[in-house]
Amino acid sequence: MAIRRRMPGTEIRVWARREESIEKVRVLGLADEASTDAAAIAKGAGLIVLCMPVGAMPEIAHRIVPVVNPSVVITDVGSVKQPVVEKLGAIFSGRAQFIGSHPMAGSEQAGIEAAREDLFDRAVTILTPEESSDKETVAALAKFWEGMGCRVAVATPRVHDEAVALISHLPHLAAAALVQAALRENPAALEWRGNGFLDTTRVALGPAEMWAGILSENREAVKKAIHAMIENLVEVTKLLDAEETGAIEDYLAEARLVRDRLKQK
Amino acid sequence: MAIRRRMPGTEIRVWARREESIEKVRVLGLADEASTDAAAIAKGAGLIVLCMPVGAMPEIAHRIVPVVNPSVVITDVGSVKQPVVEKLGAIFSGRAQFIGSHPMAGSEQAGIEAAREDLFDRAVTILTPEESSDKETVAALAKFWEGMGCRVAVATPRVHDEAVALISHLPHLAAAALVQAALRENPAALEWRGNGFLDTTRVALGPAEMWAGILSENREAVKKAIHAMIENLVEVTKLLDAEETGAIEDYLAEARLVRDRLKQK
Repeated sequence: MAIRRRMPGTEIRVWARREESIEKVRVLGLADEASTDAAAIAKGAGLIVLCMPVGAMPEIAHRIVPVVNPSVVITDVGSVKQPVVEKLGAIFSGRAQFIGSHPMAGSEQAGIEAAREDLFDRAVTILTPEESSDKETVAALAKFWEGMGCRVAVATPRVHDEAVALISHLPHLAAAALVQAALRENPAALEWRGNGFLDTTRVALGPAEMWAGILSENREAVKKAIHAMIENLVEVTKLLDAEETGAIEDYLAEARLVRDRLKQK
Repeated sequence: MAIRRRMPGTEIRVWARREESIEKVRVLGLADEASTDAAAIAKGAGLIVLCMPVGAMPEIAHRIVPVVNPSVVITDVGSVKQPVVEKLGAIFSGRAQFIGSHPMAGSEQAGIEAAREDLFDRAVTILTPEESSDKETVAALAKFWEGMGCRVAVATPRVHDEAVALISHLPHLAAAALVQAALRENPAALEWRGNGFLDTTRVALGPAEMWAGILSENREAVKKAIHAMIENLVEVTKLLDAEETGAIEDYLAEARLVRDRLKQK
């Protein structure tokens, strides 16, 4: 939908795993062509964007590699980049130009019904080229995402994975852990939740299979982020024990100030 | 605003600490009378609702106790109930009918500018009477909150405080800790945050002084809730170490299911 709106005239072809998804794409008129046959859809494409759980990418890459050529640009939208770049880089090496992307856009919703043409507006998209990546291809891919309305950043896969562990993977886990903590300690309390609880735990509505894959693929960085979270919680516990209400206020006030600067998308 | 809309004809008097807040109330036409003199505002009232940080309540209670009488109903909207009920119950004992309330409504915003006439619509309000509380007064107070659009629940102050530690105080602290963890480990990562991070940390925009007071006043229950959160995070760390992706998926799926049932306000 964003390509249609922002890059009129582009030929759009969609692959999906299930026939019923293809049917929805057709009914909604979202593509010039749609099929469950990945190779048929990929054949002749100039840019291929892999949108699927990171664990499913290698299989699809193997299916399309016979129909691509070294001038084709291939990217993905996965939340973890080191394993994706490693695996897909190897599969497409010498066969196509693969460069990882991660648009920081989306919601807890899934499926074509949740599609929005303004989803990418002003979102940050992080590109994770390797040292061997062709510079012109990186520039062309950056131009594509900017054309979609994104602000583009470039980082190594490792720097990306460590950053998103803190700003995306840990928040997801914290949201799930807040629900689980209440469920286990005092399930009746959930009946009294206000909007604050609903906001804080909204991301926990995201697909569990996809998120379990993301957390597992980014294991080391996620563990480091969890450790930082626990350290923070222990610090506040100590302040509570010491009745240091002023220090707790400083802690909250600093978080408030930093969060306030991030207010606008 | 909610009283105006739902209980037309009610005489509304507003007290605020600062003269500039009183001026705003007057300009916005939100009250029949407004003043920084608590006793003058309280005198002759049938129902008094204390809306201020919990730590500031005893002082105001002392100021209004000379002008009330045993038929006056007094309540508050504080987030912690044991210390409030204890302190205010003692101050008003034999002088007025005090019963604690906690409407689970509000947002991260503060001040009269953030007022909304539909704030209480369908929110849960928890009443925390003591054993000695007059049953008819409890019923009358419940009727008031129902008239404001709330669903009313009744609990002991202790049960209330333990529940809100899990569904309100811990989520607030987790939101602040997520911001602090990123700030300390990798501040540049914050530039890349998407909407998920913004939602999960929105409550951290709440006033730091008020929240430091809430966490401190509810120290024991908050510490128990933090402990439950840490246990959950440690559990997931162990699953990551054991490469139990299926168990992580089950953990997230259960949280998702429970959160999904809470979707509607």
